[in-house]
Amino acid sequence: MAHYVDPIDGTEYPIDAPRWRSDAGRPLWIAPGGGLGRDDIDASTASLWRYRAALPVEFGHPITLGEGRTPLLERAWGALGRPLFKLDFLNPTGSFKDRGTAVMLSYLRDRGVTAVLEDSSGNGGASVAGYGAAGGMGVTIFAPSSTSPSKIDQVRAYGATVELVEGPREESQHAAIRRSESSRSGSDAFYASHNWQAFFLQGTKTLAYEIWEDLGFRAPDNVIVPVGAGSSLLGCWLGFRELASAGQISTPPRLFAAQPLNCSPVDAAFSAGSDGPVARPVSPTIAEGTSIARPLRLPQMLHALRDSGGRSVAVPEADIARALHDLCAGGLFVEPTSATAAAAYSSLLASTAITPSETTVVLLTGSGLKAASAVADVVAAVY
Amino acid sequence: MAHYVDPIDGTEYPIDAPRWRSDAGRPLWIAPGGGLGRDDIDASTASLWRYRAALPVEFGHPITLGEGRTPLLERAWGALGRPLFKLDFLNPTGSFKDRGTAVMLSYLRDRGVTAVLEDSSGNGGASVAGYGAAGGMGVTIFAPSSTSPSKIDQVRAYGATVELVEGPREESQHAAIRRSESSRSGSDAFYASHNWQAFFLQGTKTLAYEIWEDLGFRAPDNVIVPVGAGSSLLGCWLGFRELASAGQISTPPRLFAAQPLNCSPVDAAFSAGSDGPVARPVSPTIAEGTSIARPLRLPQMLHALRDSGGRSVAVPEADIARALHDLCAGGLFVEPTSATAAAAYSSLLASTAITPSETTVVLLTGSGLKAASAVADVVAAVY
Repeated sequence: MAHYVDPIDGTEYPIDAPRWRSDAGRPLWIAPGGGLGRDDIDASTASLWRYRAALPVEFGHPITLGEGRTPLLERAWGALGRPLFKLDFLNPTGSFKDRGTAVMLSYLRDRGVTAVLEDSSGNGGASVAGYGAAGGMGVTIFAPSSTSPSKIDQVRAYGATVELVEGPREESQHAAIRRSESSRSGSDAFYASHNWQAFFLQGTKTLAYEIWEDLGFRAPDNVIVPVGAGSSLLGCWLGFRELASAGQISTPPRLFAAQPLNCSPVDAAFSAGSDGPVARPVSPTIAEGTSIARPLRLPQMLHALRDSGGRSVAVPEADIARALHDLCAGGLFVEPTSATAAAAYSSLLASTAITPSETTVVLLTGSGLKAASAVADVVAAVY
Repeated sequence: MAHYVDPIDGTEYPIDAPRWRSDAGRPLWIAPGGGLGRDDIDASTASLWRYRAALPVEFGHPITLGEGRTPLLERAWGALGRPLFKLDFLNPTGSFKDRGTAVMLSYLRDRGVTAVLEDSSGNGGASVAGYGAAGGMGVTIFAPSSTSPSKIDQVRAYGATVELVEGPREESQHAAIRRSESSRSGSDAFYASHNWQAFFLQGTKTLAYEIWEDLGFRAPDNVIVPVGAGSSLLGCWLGFRELASAGQISTPPRLFAAQPLNCSPVDAAFSAGSDGPVARPVSPTIAEGTSIARPLRLPQMLHALRDSGGRSVAVPEADIARALHDLCAGGLFVEPTSATAAAAYSSLLASTAITPSETTVVLLTGSGLKAASAVADVVAAVY
């Protein structure tokens, strides 16, 4: 029987009572994860729910918009490379976050949660608003008052309530948590943060299962993901580790975390050999989705990188812009954040950390349509 | 051996010489179309190219971004309805047009065309720009000088050349055709209009094959599509007719063409029992993608509707807005044009032209992310 566990003090909590953190205030994990075999895949289901046998609880009525089952596309990249791009920006709300959100909200709704709170004006907020709408759940999104109106058009269209909060980004999180705590039952104001709630990672781990199936039930040699709060990295780590423990693959892939050099706390800590935060200046980056200076699950991310034999990559802004140009020039219209992973592939090839003959998957996380003018301007400056 | 044919005078043209119209200046058709059986599907290919056995020529190296294989989602709609929404807005450039573009440009590139011209500032232009980029082909998009810059951000990002043309919409088409005719070889300036070139419909016909496979190799009872130039309607008609002639289905579905009442030339002609244009006033509509007052293939569309036993539906603006609201409120963030088809489903149910117990597919054609502010404003006015 699976349970929530605080990875630091080992305290366990029952899985059937929704919670977003431990009594000690830390983000939780879910254990154990047994994985699945290829015969456990529900081939009749054309979404990530085909892998539901690998999820830690039964789901009554999953909330679905057809998430997952995104293309895996082999393309030339530079003079030598031929990576496989995973087009997760083609998920229903326009980002890979739909994997985590679909599983998280389905779990919560099955347990009586009727309304959720989230703080994000980016892909996470849009995804929670979209899946909340699909599942008939109330959604309130807290965002900084400085958020440009166009960033929350999608959230508004889904019918979510938007509450603008004065002050820096952290204030939005505090406001959401305060609101959640002041709710009597909790079921009408659950803090369904995509960064905190452990079921989110249970959803993003389907990335690993899907890549494995895409490749004819093989693991790739390498997976490169853009990393902010780390849900794609940790999802891949969980999923491939489960596949290995289930005997479906012999060796999990090396995982590589791409960050903009301008905001690269994972790279700062990894490069210093640390298990925790290491100071490095932060400045603005075009890769907004990865601009998270103090990621909540930093120790777990560092462990995932080392455990898999991979590493972090910090990418200068000019290289992100160049990679964004090259992706768009090849027909892949993505957010700048996604380009960070493609740029990291180039630098890993150049440093011979990975070789062209290896099978390397590069995750493209968010749609360029979410920031079309910004993408067009960045690309035009490179042409 | 397939060939181009002028549907009016019957003149045939060899399929291997790319052309976009007959010598008499009319849009062409491709015949015959033999269809395929379920064993002819290339199940190892996770895109519309799995149906390539149904295409009229061999393809050397298809240009692909993983188009097709979009979710088919059963959802409650109103008090009684439970249609299947086909989420074709999740195609790589954000619209169903990618089906037609991928096949059209692959055909042209195989035959030596290196650069194409197109006139569209909407989904068609974005799709041709994206697939041209993916295929290493030059793309020039002609658009009215009144086009708002944000409408061509995606086209710019793909690296296409945009030429703004003074005057009404038709002038952009004339400019593209003039440029094409002044090119010496034609291969470096082929007029690859998604409205004119017949291979575009060969791509959109994969909609029928995919719906058939999605339904466990059955045809639905009804398919409702939003109609402007009619490529989704004609594609469905072609595909299902081929499946019937191949003995894979007994009866093709009834096809319904949804248009905004404010611009409804198909409904005007269909309602009048005419085979050609019937005057009806045109005014602006929020369903921009279907705002085509004089569709090129009108007679073929009228034939497809009558042949299938379906009909046209003209939808008032308020009903489009209400349907857009309801789609978004259910997590389906689409363009207003797509909402026209959902609104038509409601009115067809209300009139008992179709019944809730029938299997009805509603095509959602374009992503809401392409016009996020406009969608949010329309939806907010309904809430």
